Amino acid sequence: MKLYVIGIGPGGADQMTPRALDAIRKSDIVAGYTVYMDLVRDYIGDKEILQTPMRQEIDRCVQARDAALRGKTVAMVCSGDAGVYGMAGLMHEVCAAYPELEIEVIPGITAACGGAAVLGAPLMHDFAVISLSDLLTPWETIAKRLDLAAQADFCICLYNPSSRKRADYLQKACDILLKSKAADTPCGTVRNIGRDGEQHAVCTLAQLRDTNVDMFTTVFIGNSQTRVIHGKLVTPRGYENK
Amino acid sequence: MKLYVIGIGPGGADQMTPRALDAIRKSDIVAGYTVYMDLVRDYIGDKEILQTPMRQEIDRCVQARDAALRGKTVAMVCSGDAGVYGMAGLMHEVCAAYPELEIEVIPGITAACGGAAVLGAPLMHDFAVISLSDLLTPWETIAKRLDLAAQADFCICLYNPSSRKRADYLQKACDILLKSKAADTPCGTVRNIGRDGEQHAVCTLAQLRDTNVDMFTTVFIGNSQTRVIHGKLVTPRGYENK
Repeated sequence: MKLYVIGIGPGGADQMTPRALDAIRKSDIVAGYTVYMDLVRDYIGDKEILQTPMRQEIDRCVQARDAALRGKTVAMVCSGDAGVYGMAGLMHEVCAAYPELEIEVIPGITAACGGAAVLGAPLMHDFAVISLSDLLTPWETIAKRLDLAAQADFCICLYNPSSRKRADYLQKACDILLKSKAADTPCGTVRNIGRDGEQHAVCTLAQLRDTNVDMFTTVFIGNSQTRVIHGKLVTPRGYENK
Repeated sequence: MKLYVIGIGPGGADQMTPRALDAIRKSDIVAGYTVYMDLVRDYIGDKEILQTPMRQEIDRCVQARDAALRGKTVAMVCSGDAGVYGMAGLMHEVCAAYPELEIEVIPGITAACGGAAVLGAPLMHDFAVISLSDLLTPWETIAKRLDLAAQADFCICLYNPSSRKRADYLQKACDILLKSKAADTPCGTVRNIGRDGEQHAVCTLAQLRDTNVDMFTTVFIGNSQTRVIHGKLVTPRGYENK
């Protein structure tokens, strides 16, 4: 009667915690989106697998819940952190009518932290995390959050910055940010964080506006203090002003 | 000539990544704030230790840098993630004049992710991370960010919500948030995340205003959609509306 919702981190086994690995080992059934399952294939062994394609999130959680109700221990695997655009929330919602089910969320390294480390230290001060996907959120809400986050001089990390149907969303987002942030604000992109083919780039906000990114990319936008030191993005905390 | 800046996660060895552990093993010298060093004592063995008290951040980074310049491999250990209110940024700043030094930032699980997992799933949608410490940041900047983050209906995670000298800062922060967020917005606190004596509580924003917290506590404030399911904080992503 136990459900683990597990963040496995960016990808490689070297960035998954022992706690996450241990929960997979303890489980009878492992569930998750196909791509993420491949990342932990070595640890699944001959366990039963519940595999569902992208965009079948509710089905995936319901199947996992129903298996747990049959007495199985189930691991729901998410990339990054289970609690940041992962399955932790939906699993709680889907299990709301079954208080007898114990749900344990196991955190992992989310793309904001994994990608920031690749770029240097862009999120050293207050920051906002915003998804540009309007599949589940009206664009007006996203636009308002971008606008206010820029006014607040937050460092900003963008998840889901683009997809085939939303090719111009990063451009639209940058246009909003440029109302309050300088065109030369240092920015960065990281693609395939912690996986084979990891790539990163540093640019200005004006350049970012005209950059093509895909759904495997996480985008970082500095605050007014962020600078580039030897190719790395660095947002000071303010020690040097003390 | 190599410096690792390592996030060791919330505390226990089971939430530190193999990559972090491997970097400590590869290092000749381990540096860090006393409390965090104790958390990794078992992995340090007989390596040289550079230990500095709290508030000596610049000295700590300079000592680590100088050791690296003498040809040593140095691990600078941070709790949580090295890139979120950690040492990654300051290390890059302190080493700016020494491009021959290679700095590798290794991410860890930050309190936003670790604490969210304890509470359920409060950060499932767009969120802002704000430190209430005004040691390095003017209170006016913090107040403005709180106000705009609340207007944007972000979920909010507060680091450093209190200290002996700043006993009323959480109250002041809640008063700002209450201008835009409902008094019954679900909130939560987690103390000693992932360590002995971990404690958590769920309350409303109005109740949070009158809660005493200490510097070992991380605070979570929901957005307008966040609700409590069997004692857990859950922010929906919106799947059920599709």
